[in-house]
Amino acid sequence: MDIKTIIYDYREKINRQLESFLANKIEEAAGISPDVRDVVVNATEYTLRGGKRLRPIFFIYGYKCISDGDDNAIINASISIELMQSYLLIHDDIMDEDELRRGKPTFHVLYKDICEREFGDAKSVRFGENMAILTGDLLEAYGEEALANSDFDARYVRRALCKYLEIVRKVGYGQIMDIMSERKGSITADEVLTIHRLKTASYTIEGPLQLGAILAGAGERDLQVMSAYGIPLGIAFQIQDDILGLFGREAKIGKPVGSDIREGKKTLLILHALERCTDDERRFILRTMGNEHITADEIEAVREIVRRTGSFDYSKQLVRSNTERAIEAMENSDFRADAKEFLIKIADFIGEREY
Amino acid sequence: MDIKTIIYDYREKINRQLESFLANKIEEAAGISPDVRDVVVNATEYTLRGGKRLRPIFFIYGYKCISDGDDNAIINASISIELMQSYLLIHDDIMDEDELRRGKPTFHVLYKDICEREFGDAKSVRFGENMAILTGDLLEAYGEEALANSDFDARYVRRALCKYLEIVRKVGYGQIMDIMSERKGSITADEVLTIHRLKTASYTIEGPLQLGAILAGAGERDLQVMSAYGIPLGIAFQIQDDILGLFGREAKIGKPVGSDIREGKKTLLILHALERCTDDERRFILRTMGNEHITADEIEAVREIVRRTGSFDYSKQLVRSNTERAIEAMENSDFRADAKEFLIKIADFIGEREY
Repeated sequence: MDIKTIIYDYREKINRQLESFLANKIEEAAGISPDVRDVVVNATEYTLRGGKRLRPIFFIYGYKCISDGDDNAIINASISIELMQSYLLIHDDIMDEDELRRGKPTFHVLYKDICEREFGDAKSVRFGENMAILTGDLLEAYGEEALANSDFDARYVRRALCKYLEIVRKVGYGQIMDIMSERKGSITADEVLTIHRLKTASYTIEGPLQLGAILAGAGERDLQVMSAYGIPLGIAFQIQDDILGLFGREAKIGKPVGSDIREGKKTLLILHALERCTDDERRFILRTMGNEHITADEIEAVREIVRRTGSFDYSKQLVRSNTERAIEAMENSDFRADAKEFLIKIADFIGEREY
Repeated sequence: MDIKTIIYDYREKINRQLESFLANKIEEAAGISPDVRDVVVNATEYTLRGGKRLRPIFFIYGYKCISDGDDNAIINASISIELMQSYLLIHDDIMDEDELRRGKPTFHVLYKDICEREFGDAKSVRFGENMAILTGDLLEAYGEEALANSDFDARYVRRALCKYLEIVRKVGYGQIMDIMSERKGSITADEVLTIHRLKTASYTIEGPLQLGAILAGAGERDLQVMSAYGIPLGIAFQIQDDILGLFGREAKIGKPVGSDIREGKKTLLILHALERCTDDERRFILRTMGNEHITADEIEAVREIVRRTGSFDYSKQLVRSNTERAIEAMENSDFRADAKEFLIKIADFIGEREY
């Protein structure tokens, strides 16, 4: 089993289904007005810009844990979680005032630019944000529709929708905590872990797996195994993200190195270092946090502190131990053999990924 | 059958169910953090602030057209449309930069104020809008959950969810057109009617009726009758709203008289007058549109032009003819007698309402 080939193959299939689903929506919108059509065209471009499609792949493998059924039906349903992702990113980008997403303008910036080109500068920021709020709302509804219309037993679909909405709620609650703590300027390691659990673990791995499994008619015990695998792996995924955000190479991760520092994001990596460094170092780190003009030397100095305090090794160790916990839970499950094998391998892959 | 008593009784029941549903969500949020709890408490206060609850009442009567089943189950499901309304209002208020809703601060202003009180002025507008975006997103998910969890056959629930998502899409498309035309500064009567059809007709009357009917197992022909009743009545409702926005008394309608002019909203009432007035009058009206400091005398002058050009009578006539069309469609239906009677009476009520 070559996991990269499997991922690549499914990614292609998922992208084709996203294209076909959104082509229908473009047609629907074209029936209303050319402006509405353009918005859905741009939402499609945004959604297809890139992304690893890990969430729909977990969705598909959640199904495969239980059933060897129709691949097409589950691929069609799996795009619901990618449309959710697109909605969340568009709204997040407004909130964080980010200007780039996957190397291109974020949605609100795209429409700010369109406004300035076509109607002038006045209120262009408001206009851009309004279009992004609306487009995010549309994508949320599209995602649910992909699930509601999917080709499975109505009772399973209803249960999957309840789970989907639970994920939307959790991510929303996590984002509220995040925005609050950012504005307060203080956050504890416990709070960071709660935010990870709500914002990443639930909708990156655990949630998608459970959604797919529910569509295959999974029972409560199956879903618990998926939590035992998905929650630690989701946390490992997030911590690895934090490590890459500070130590990864720009070409690989697709965003500027040190952007977490620039945005003032207090990751576990940074919090752990802050607890163990000298007073001078603490003042230095806190001064760089949220500084948009941070230099490469300053980033290197932060890295050095993170290494010296053992925070780097500690975080690496957390990634490893959480990944191992996930693998163990999967090994002890009675899921279908090929799905188990894939999920064990992808856990290793996530623990070691460089992007 | 005293229609006001029926409306009042259902309104009470709907409000109690909204309270009970949201109390559960407050509890859920309290399990995460006090800040998250506060947000859900404020979202509850916002939702319960007032409102006529016409949408859930239409939802309930859509069900009653087909079935004489359990009142509690349909009341519980009907709050889904009121939660959608709450989500749409919160996001709309951000887009329109409105500061008051039902006599109290809009959601983004509420959190802007909280920010300034607790954390200081910096970025308080951004913070307020972020919390309002997130809270709207949560309420959208709550609404769908109230429907997904409702006590009806899973096949009906799935079909109702698809209809619900269709309504969210239509309202979104309508709002995109609205924002676009506002920024362009030009709009045709046709576009205004399309926006009314998308933004008001679909989710005020036609959509709620169909949602309730679907939960009772309605067929496609039943839903068509509901469109034949709901679309014209929705248009009548919207035009009556426009009339009240210019001619209504503040104490009755709960918002400042002339607020449509102040916001530069080009209603059919205004568009019709613009086509028939003198050049001087046109210049005068266009100057008042969007003017936040418009005086009572200026509003009276606009009213005078709207009256003299026959636009007032024309709009009144449109309300009447659309109401009559709705009533005729309902009279010709084979729906259950008590539901028919109610829906015919409420159509008259809407055609003549003063708030």
